[in-house]
Amino acid sequence: MPNLSKPRAVVLFSGGLDSTTLLAIAIQEGYDAYALSFRYGQRHEAELRAAERLARAMGARQHRVFEVDLRSFGGSVLTSELPVPKGRDLSAAAGIPPTYVPARNTVFLALALAWAETLEAGHIFIGVNALDYSGYPDCRPEFIEAFERMARLATKAGVEGAERVRIHTPLINLRKAEIIRKGLALGVDYSQTVSCYDPLPEGEACGECDACQLRRRGFEENSIEDPAPYRASANIVR
Amino acid sequence: MPNLSKPRAVVLFSGGLDSTTLLAIAIQEGYDAYALSFRYGQRHEAELRAAERLARAMGARQHRVFEVDLRSFGGSVLTSELPVPKGRDLSAAAGIPPTYVPARNTVFLALALAWAETLEAGHIFIGVNALDYSGYPDCRPEFIEAFERMARLATKAGVEGAERVRIHTPLINLRKAEIIRKGLALGVDYSQTVSCYDPLPEGEACGECDACQLRRRGFEENSIEDPAPYRASANIVR
Repeated sequence: MPNLSKPRAVVLFSGGLDSTTLLAIAIQEGYDAYALSFRYGQRHEAELRAAERLARAMGARQHRVFEVDLRSFGGSVLTSELPVPKGRDLSAAAGIPPTYVPARNTVFLALALAWAETLEAGHIFIGVNALDYSGYPDCRPEFIEAFERMARLATKAGVEGAERVRIHTPLINLRKAEIIRKGLALGVDYSQTVSCYDPLPEGEACGECDACQLRRRGFEENSIEDPAPYRASANIVR
Repeated sequence: MPNLSKPRAVVLFSGGLDSTTLLAIAIQEGYDAYALSFRYGQRHEAELRAAERLARAMGARQHRVFEVDLRSFGGSVLTSELPVPKGRDLSAAAGIPPTYVPARNTVFLALALAWAETLEAGHIFIGVNALDYSGYPDCRPEFIEAFERMARLATKAGVEGAERVRIHTPLINLRKAEIIRKGLALGVDYSQTVSCYDPLPEGEACGECDACQLRRRGFEENSIEDPAPYRASANIVR
């Protein structure tokens, strides 16, 4: 039974560290959470299996996996056969990373908006971060504001004067270590979350891609061991 | 071989009357056209088969059918088992029609943007019309402008200063009869186009849904017989 006293929110939820923290925040803030994951041609299913388990354990009202195969458009190492870069020096990396998927957040937010409109949910949560991934154009606050403005014009609510959709980005100004601290305070079990761009089939992280490097550094800054499994041979960059 | 001297455009193309005219306009204006159709849970495949034939005949560089199953979100008679309304008095109809699909144009434009970014195409064409379908929030000029603004921030071009994407809506202020006149002047073969919301499996139109009524009226205002096939029993509203 949906809880009618709670506002509904669609939460973009990949099962990674950021969006799992995001889901915990949405639930803690009192939203009835509808978690939305995508099968978009990513290399591995481990992330989606983790998302399923986590959404249930954390008390999301629903969890849905939507198929949208961005592979067919190409343009990213995440949705192609190209190798994921390993051991990059992130402090020196500039520009848009090869892991950028063209218009991905626009597509994901548009689909979240479609579900939100059907649910009559006035809230969408997305775990974008403007600091660690500053190379991604669709993680910037000005993009999110422009999407929200567009979304209010796109929907019935924009015509009929109902509650207008709001895009929530509680992680946008947090560093990875701060996100982890916030999640731990909310009881997030990070052993279940998959962040790696190139994990083994069972979800063990490579330890060397950009996402692994950022994640490990975030745990180190909190002086905590990352509880997620890494592959035995991982050449950990410290 | 792509023609390097022509600017590339992604054209949202359903195989219906409006978007077929749109494709003809884009090609006539000198764009190298990449036609994009969607299998989004519509009731019939006739539209997609027609789109395939038309795109080839008209000289689109590529035609692609992208799967995005909006049925799973619900919210529209077009993607459900609910009956399509027939014989509505459109002059008296007010508000948002039951054929509205939540956030559909936002989702379609987002996917067009993903393909455009991969192709390095700076142009997207969409056949929205603010007059005949004034009940749809995502056909209004202010929605299109807001989408364009968002799209420029969403993409690599918005960061790297490359050509910024432009959304073209050449039909937005035309009445149906004017769209048909324009298409005929460009040599569009309307016998191939499917507009009906509820056609027979081979594509014969019902003659009574909102889309059929608008289309027939458009041909009548031009004193031309609609060359598209209608089902024998169609109770034509005149």
